Amino acid sequence: MTINLLLFDRFETLDAFGPVEMLSDMGNNTIVCCSLAGGPIRSSHGFAVDTVPLVGTDETAVLLIPGGMGTRALVDHAEFLSALRERAEKAEYVLTVCTGSALLARTGLLDGKKATTNKMAFAWVKSCGEAVLWQSTARWAADGKFYTASGVSAGIDMALGFMCDRFGAEKADAIARATEYVWNRDPDADPFARTDN
Amino acid sequence: MTINLLLFDRFETLDAFGPVEMLSDMGNNTIVCCSLAGGPIRSSHGFAVDTVPLVGTDETAVLLIPGGMGTRALVDHAEFLSALRERAEKAEYVLTVCTGSALLARTGLLDGKKATTNKMAFAWVKSCGEAVLWQSTARWAADGKFYTASGVSAGIDMALGFMCDRFGAEKADAIARATEYVWNRDPDADPFARTDN
Repeated sequence: MTINLLLFDRFETLDAFGPVEMLSDMGNNTIVCCSLAGGPIRSSHGFAVDTVPLVGTDETAVLLIPGGMGTRALVDHAEFLSALRERAEKAEYVLTVCTGSALLARTGLLDGKKATTNKMAFAWVKSCGEAVLWQSTARWAADGKFYTASGVSAGIDMALGFMCDRFGAEKADAIARATEYVWNRDPDADPFARTDN
Repeated sequence: MTINLLLFDRFETLDAFGPVEMLSDMGNNTIVCCSLAGGPIRSSHGFAVDTVPLVGTDETAVLLIPGGMGTRALVDHAEFLSALRERAEKAEYVLTVCTGSALLARTGLLDGKKATTNKMAFAWVKSCGEAVLWQSTARWAADGKFYTASGVSAGIDMALGFMCDRFGAEKADAIARATEYVWNRDPDADPFARTDN
């Protein structure tokens, strides 16, 4: 399995690299860091990761989209959203973490589908896709090929949930054990749910 | 607060970036990615992170050392170990994750101190420092200025434990909440402890 991690300036570090650790399945799967134009991309914590251009990567690979402050500008970036829509349509699965779901929502592909996001940015993300069936209590949500996680660390749980759905609980448990991760395995158990959104 | 993240080829991705997310305190603290010689460093997942040379960074900054397969060669790398020892002595705090503790153990600075490591690599890490008081049941261990975490994900819990010790439980809880992380807050509760080491 290949996972295309789509990065952009000011992506949230753990949104990206928590799921990467789990999806890689101890190195059995391939991680490709890409971005719209390729080249170095800076995380929210200021360090740069080298990326290849999205164009040219495997179109059917799993597409992983982190959140972060960088999403605030990208929700109005027509070229980014157009490229994202095209690739999200072709990808076998699309996974978002935190405010990454705002980007996917802006492509329209989540319309009528269940999705979730960071509970602290819930109102803003909702405004990026009024026709999405936003879940205010969900560690993560899965609807067809779209998996969306709540804030930051929830992406780790979602990634294991995705591995579980695709390859079985034994595989997900083996990854959690190898990474000494205490997996929050119930997508509906959300300790960070808010009732004021 | 400044955190120097000391990277090396084939460092384990989440060992590094889980703690980075928590130690940064939502961007209030500075993360500096460094390596022995500077330049691009490849993670265990194949992507490159840009680094500055360790020499020239703040000597008293918190020093964070991930584990990963790259440690297997570094435990015999005299120049790396010498630089690590010098900087670990000067650093106000030294935090290791997973097999990162093998590197610190090889400097001798953990001799007579309580420390822990990945439970799957326990025997090998012990062999890197026979005089260390290795803890076979510990999510993480703290002894003076040295904090050592068990495998991979345990580094996230240790980082919050470190923030708690330094700045109080309210601070650690606020970071966990902002990152929607279910914090395993008891350093002695170790679901991955093994009795055969």
